[in-house]
Amino acid sequence: MEIDGDIDTAIPRHVEVVLRRYLAQRRAELPELAQTFAAAVDTLSDFALRGGKRIRPTFAWWGWRAAGGEGSGQRAEAVLTAVSALELIQACALVHDDLMDASELRRGQPTVHVRFTEAHRAGAWQGEPERFGMAAAILLGDLALAWADDMFTGAPLAEDMRRAAREPWLAMRAEMFAGQYLDVLAQAEGDESEDRALGVARLKTAAYTVERPLHMGVALAGADTGTVEAVRTFGTDIGVAFQLRDDLLGVYGDTEVTGKPAGDDLREGKRTLLVSLGLRYADEAGRHTDADLLRQALGDPNLAPATIERVRELLVEVGAVDELERRIEHLTASGMAALDASGLAEPGRTRLADLAIAATRRDR
Amino acid sequence: MEIDGDIDTAIPRHVEVVLRRYLAQRRAELPELAQTFAAAVDTLSDFALRGGKRIRPTFAWWGWRAAGGEGSGQRAEAVLTAVSALELIQACALVHDDLMDASELRRGQPTVHVRFTEAHRAGAWQGEPERFGMAAAILLGDLALAWADDMFTGAPLAEDMRRAAREPWLAMRAEMFAGQYLDVLAQAEGDESEDRALGVARLKTAAYTVERPLHMGVALAGADTGTVEAVRTFGTDIGVAFQLRDDLLGVYGDTEVTGKPAGDDLREGKRTLLVSLGLRYADEAGRHTDADLLRQALGDPNLAPATIERVRELLVEVGAVDELERRIEHLTASGMAALDASGLAEPGRTRLADLAIAATRRDR
Repeated sequence: MEIDGDIDTAIPRHVEVVLRRYLAQRRAELPELAQTFAAAVDTLSDFALRGGKRIRPTFAWWGWRAAGGEGSGQRAEAVLTAVSALELIQACALVHDDLMDASELRRGQPTVHVRFTEAHRAGAWQGEPERFGMAAAILLGDLALAWADDMFTGAPLAEDMRRAAREPWLAMRAEMFAGQYLDVLAQAEGDESEDRALGVARLKTAAYTVERPLHMGVALAGADTGTVEAVRTFGTDIGVAFQLRDDLLGVYGDTEVTGKPAGDDLREGKRTLLVSLGLRYADEAGRHTDADLLRQALGDPNLAPATIERVRELLVEVGAVDELERRIEHLTASGMAALDASGLAEPGRTRLADLAIAATRRDR
Repeated sequence: MEIDGDIDTAIPRHVEVVLRRYLAQRRAELPELAQTFAAAVDTLSDFALRGGKRIRPTFAWWGWRAAGGEGSGQRAEAVLTAVSALELIQACALVHDDLMDASELRRGQPTVHVRFTEAHRAGAWQGEPERFGMAAAILLGDLALAWADDMFTGAPLAEDMRRAAREPWLAMRAEMFAGQYLDVLAQAEGDESEDRALGVARLKTAAYTVERPLHMGVALAGADTGTVEAVRTFGTDIGVAFQLRDDLLGVYGDTEVTGKPAGDDLREGKRTLLVSLGLRYADEAGRHTDADLLRQALGDPNLAPATIERVRELLVEVGAVDELERRIEHLTASGMAALDASGLAEPGRTRLADLAIAATRRDR
């Protein structure tokens, strides 16, 4: 057992230890016949173990601690396993998302579908390389999703803990797929409504990344209904603020920090609240040329740097950026108020407040 | 409760009742924000409820009955729910498989990715229609997989039953994805080995369709290790025989019966045991022109009817068809011997024998 007892001080490292062990065990259980598949599973494991901030298990862990769960011992280790399973859902989401978006890079490395496309090409195999890459990415994402469930349901939790965590576990996965679908649909329909943009932020980011992981953590600790409601409010507000900060970083972020090309959200045609507000404010101000420029920029794969710069300026000029900052500020404040009213315990409560600040601040 | 107490006499109908209820309940739980996603979920539900022979729940159910499980009452209904979850795994497998194979039709209707591609086209939406269809099919397949787990883990089983069924449940899903990957890889590599073809048959068909569902059924009934081993042997042998019959139907089957165009397996380049044996026997007999013809036919999307006819003849001439019939016969016999030695109870035992015969006979 490599868990050293002090999970609080190094959650991402402990999540990785638990994940590494679980993936190795499942790989070893694969039948002899499936050894070529085991090699493919290594690509998935590398991907899941390579990095990421482990934000979902971290929120869940601090929810557990803030609602009175221990920081070490048998129960704490079972909870660590249960919340680490969130990272396998995330592995599925990222592998499938990269395929849907035709993204080439993730965390500075070729995406999973690209790796298998390249292997096909390198082997000069039969059929289309892209089709093989797609199949491998679909199947490995599916496996990650199945293993996420196996890891969660197999964590050695007491029966009442498992029962309590089941509601957020079920809701989270359905909400995540719903959010992704709404996102894809909004892009396809060219939806400009603020409601749709906020709906995607609520489901895809707030529910999946903050609210439900927290809900899971406090439920595991046996929190009462009032506490659950308080952390869900905190999680929703902070989660939406987190997505709005992401909207801003997607247009104004430093490539060095975000790891994505400048203006990538515009090029992909993402229907964010920033874009919805920008279009509405430009139209209301009679700046129809600006509104048209923004509409045409969205989803243009060959967007020129000068156009990106002009879009950046006009979003500031019409007031969309200020409004987003205001909303982030309000959501962060209302989230913090819910946290204050929650009656959660230290040190978890302060750590949750710190996480909320870190997730929503300008220099994130 | 629409379960009328006599599950034995109409398993597919009862599976459908349970599935319909579960899908409706999960749809109703989706948040208000996700109503456009709920409409997409209806497409998945239609697909899962539309048909199929419910072969996996049927094997699982008769495993349960043959190992002493009751045919009605509370425990029986909980088992019915647990085994019906197999159909949601199958929904995921089919939706994702149709996408990977770019299949247009399934059960006489447009496949899921095609439906969403068409919706995109009909709405004259932005972006590529095929990319939207792909995204929707990936997300709905993922949802089906997550819901399969939720349905299985949520079935009101006694704790010892749930624990016993967990091993086959975990193994089955990993083996299914492994089998699908091996199948795709064998096609890409143009693998001609019998071992690979048999490996795919073992994992993708035998384990996933017969062995593990049966294992699940007898495990739910608390079967001892000897019984589990016996039904796994029976399931593996019958499952492989089932796949070999499928190989023959894929080349010689009547389009009216199989629902697929004649020679579809050849056109898709499937690496079946029939093909492996055909190539080896042709090479061994010095019939290199025939071997080359077969190699070239595999994966040719524009395969001419005359070529299909010639491939059919040559597979008979070199003895591959006879050998496949022999193997089906031997596997069926060894499977039946394992069933006879299993000590399973009536009426389940006779029903399993009937299912085995039905799955492997010429006029299936």
